[in-house]
Amino acid sequence: MFSKILIANRGEIAVRVIRACREMGISTVAVYSEADRDALHVSLADECYCIGPARAKDSYLNMSAVLSAAAASGAQAIHPGYGLLSENAEFARLCEQCGITFIGPSPEVLFRMGDKDEAKRTMKAASVPVIPGSGLVENPEEAKRTAAEIGYPLLIKARAGGGGRGIRLIQKEEEFDRAFSQASEEAASAFGDGGMYLEKYMTGVKHVEMQVLCDTFGNIICLGERDCSMQRKNQKILEESPSPAVSGSQREKLSQLCERAMRAVGYTGAGTVEFLMDRDGRFYFMEMNTRLQVEHPVTEMVTGIDLVKWQIRVAAGLPLDFTAEEASLRGHAIECRINAENPKENFRPGCGKVTLLHIPGGPSVRFDTALYPDYSVPPFYDSMIGKLIVHAKTREEAIRKMQAALCELVIEGVDHNGEFLLELLQEDAFQSGRYTTSYLAERGSL
Amino acid sequence: MFSKILIANRGEIAVRVIRACREMGISTVAVYSEADRDALHVSLADECYCIGPARAKDSYLNMSAVLSAAAASGAQAIHPGYGLLSENAEFARLCEQCGITFIGPSPEVLFRMGDKDEAKRTMKAASVPVIPGSGLVENPEEAKRTAAEIGYPLLIKARAGGGGRGIRLIQKEEEFDRAFSQASEEAASAFGDGGMYLEKYMTGVKHVEMQVLCDTFGNIICLGERDCSMQRKNQKILEESPSPAVSGSQREKLSQLCERAMRAVGYTGAGTVEFLMDRDGRFYFMEMNTRLQVEHPVTEMVTGIDLVKWQIRVAAGLPLDFTAEEASLRGHAIECRINAENPKENFRPGCGKVTLLHIPGGPSVRFDTALYPDYSVPPFYDSMIGKLIVHAKTREEAIRKMQAALCELVIEGVDHNGEFLLELLQEDAFQSGRYTTSYLAERGSL
Repeated sequence: MFSKILIANRGEIAVRVIRACREMGISTVAVYSEADRDALHVSLADECYCIGPARAKDSYLNMSAVLSAAAASGAQAIHPGYGLLSENAEFARLCEQCGITFIGPSPEVLFRMGDKDEAKRTMKAASVPVIPGSGLVENPEEAKRTAAEIGYPLLIKARAGGGGRGIRLIQKEEEFDRAFSQASEEAASAFGDGGMYLEKYMTGVKHVEMQVLCDTFGNIICLGERDCSMQRKNQKILEESPSPAVSGSQREKLSQLCERAMRAVGYTGAGTVEFLMDRDGRFYFMEMNTRLQVEHPVTEMVTGIDLVKWQIRVAAGLPLDFTAEEASLRGHAIECRINAENPKENFRPGCGKVTLLHIPGGPSVRFDTALYPDYSVPPFYDSMIGKLIVHAKTREEAIRKMQAALCELVIEGVDHNGEFLLELLQEDAFQSGRYTTSYLAERGSL
Repeated sequence: MFSKILIANRGEIAVRVIRACREMGISTVAVYSEADRDALHVSLADECYCIGPARAKDSYLNMSAVLSAAAASGAQAIHPGYGLLSENAEFARLCEQCGITFIGPSPEVLFRMGDKDEAKRTMKAASVPVIPGSGLVENPEEAKRTAAEIGYPLLIKARAGGGGRGIRLIQKEEEFDRAFSQASEEAASAFGDGGMYLEKYMTGVKHVEMQVLCDTFGNIICLGERDCSMQRKNQKILEESPSPAVSGSQREKLSQLCERAMRAVGYTGAGTVEFLMDRDGRFYFMEMNTRLQVEHPVTEMVTGIDLVKWQIRVAAGLPLDFTAEEASLRGHAIECRINAENPKENFRPGCGKVTLLHIPGGPSVRFDTALYPDYSVPPFYDSMIGKLIVHAKTREEAIRKMQAALCELVIEGVDHNGEFLLELLQEDAFQSGRYTTSYLAERGSL
């Protein structure tokens, strides 16, 4: 087992990983930007290194700075968290070259699944149904012809995409040329890769994703699905497991599908296979996230499996020591993302000093956060400042638990979406479990 | 179901009950003493009533004040928490007379089990082995003769006892007269009842207690044992479930014993049957606690059962809707009691203002507390200011999780026993699971 791990991330996920390491008796190294000197992950880690200015590209995304800190501290492995460098194949390869274990799948798998077009082809070859669409489209003219075949509305997507960038929804042909060039330019500037592909735009569908965990001995365990259909502008804001729309036999089928796919890919570590589920209960592969997800705690609560510890164990060459049956879903878990934003002002992101903080507690209530009283939320990073997760025997009880916990949560000094989430939990669409990815857009403004 | 419940308690347990009520959609009424105006339970409840001066006997133990608040607020039920009025048969009877549901067993059961001598006789009648000893002893001369038969060392105990008062350990006959009169006087003044009985003093034993839950339809479910052998001056400071010293077949046997006893008693609600377990694995009934225990969360974590919610449901006449099998123990849970005290100054209780507070979190870490930043811990009440509870797949992992959580816990401004607990967790006696109730006394000072 590693004796020292560097956490190449910030915020709640850095805190989450540090805690897992502590419990495993592993020393931790934090890296931080100049804006994060007072961040919680810095004070919790055993060692820390400032790796540059506030903006992520000057610090957290600076691969050589991160690797230098790892070398200087003698860390044997790097946990990338989510976002930032977590799906960067080049970074994983550099780690390998430096003799440092990248906690995640191999650079080859990162590269293959990071190319969204290649990922779809890989899945197709493993007999996993994928969302109808094109392969890589070479030029706007060819693209437009293919678009006509697929039919409108459709999505133009960057093969190197992520985080909602390089995507355009096109309702009709007239919009095509302009949207295509915009998206392609955006992708080229954001990812250094303007390669695009087309995808049928599916509405009224569920976003259902399967958590997988694979060791280096060929053991593959599917840990059940998460329903992440509650989205605002392609950003998940509430997740639950199990999905209220997925039956036991569908789960079984999806697990078999994912197991086959993971075997074909040669996957190792924790990963998530994302699907859209149409009204008839058919699943279509969308993409794979080759890292820990923000919403991993809901799976942890229903399975009792600590995903971060297992990422570390697998990276250290240990085999999974439990069966899918032992980790079968128990009860129901829900996560709400607490964002520093103002829902009444079109969700404008906020920042500022936390003047009062009260975190809800009690049985099966978990709040993953890097907030503390008097902490100043910096304006440079993602607006998510906490994740409230609850677990109960039934979905109904979990909803009530979440409502009670949200009512109890107090974060003063920073605008946040707590009340918005409370309203959402009360709505029929959520309560019935029948909400789809289009729900929030159709629901309109508050 | 009730629509409004009054919580006749303070501190973490009042907060715990309020949260359960909120999740059940039940309004809450807090009562508080003048010293508790700024207490967390007061701000979390929907309504609150000041019921008297700081000292518990002038407020929290003032039955008519509590009942007046219940009447004024229209509460249909009272949850007594633990300590205070929770095992008071007279209070339960007054509630009944006022048409208010006392959330606990009937006044008759409270009375019968509250008389420790009567409780032992009841258990004996149900074929439950009890600690060897006398029945009620009428006078010092008779007592001394009986003592010689039982053999020294032995304990003199008040039949109305509780909280370590009215108990004396006697090593040899010469000490008898003096100790007997002292203990009897103490009991008479503390409980208004000087009745005493004798009990063999068992050393090198485990304190093992069984959690039971009984509804009004005759369903009795045993929720596994807790090992509470880590005690300092008869006060539990660390509890775990399952006990590292109890085998599956012993658990099974103990469950059968308790089920039979509870049926004989006509028990309803949540309760705990306390046993001593000798080196040969034999169990001896010690006493029954007819209320929620401080250490109930360890059982909640290994069974997934919310004991407070079930207390309320049973009191409202609902049947248990799960089987013992569904609630079978999963993994291992440990609780550490965080006390405001200074272990370096003979555990002198402390109080004061919390100047800095950081609560550990992450998967399966629970901190039940009524602390908040800038809160002033008053000097009038129990020194316990928080309970840190963790759950993991194995005992070893749970220990490491507790160590990590204790390391992370920061409470500044008030002395507490966090470091003492950390040291304890590292000791062989604890790690091996073989510690007994005598361990801390034998271990000596730090």
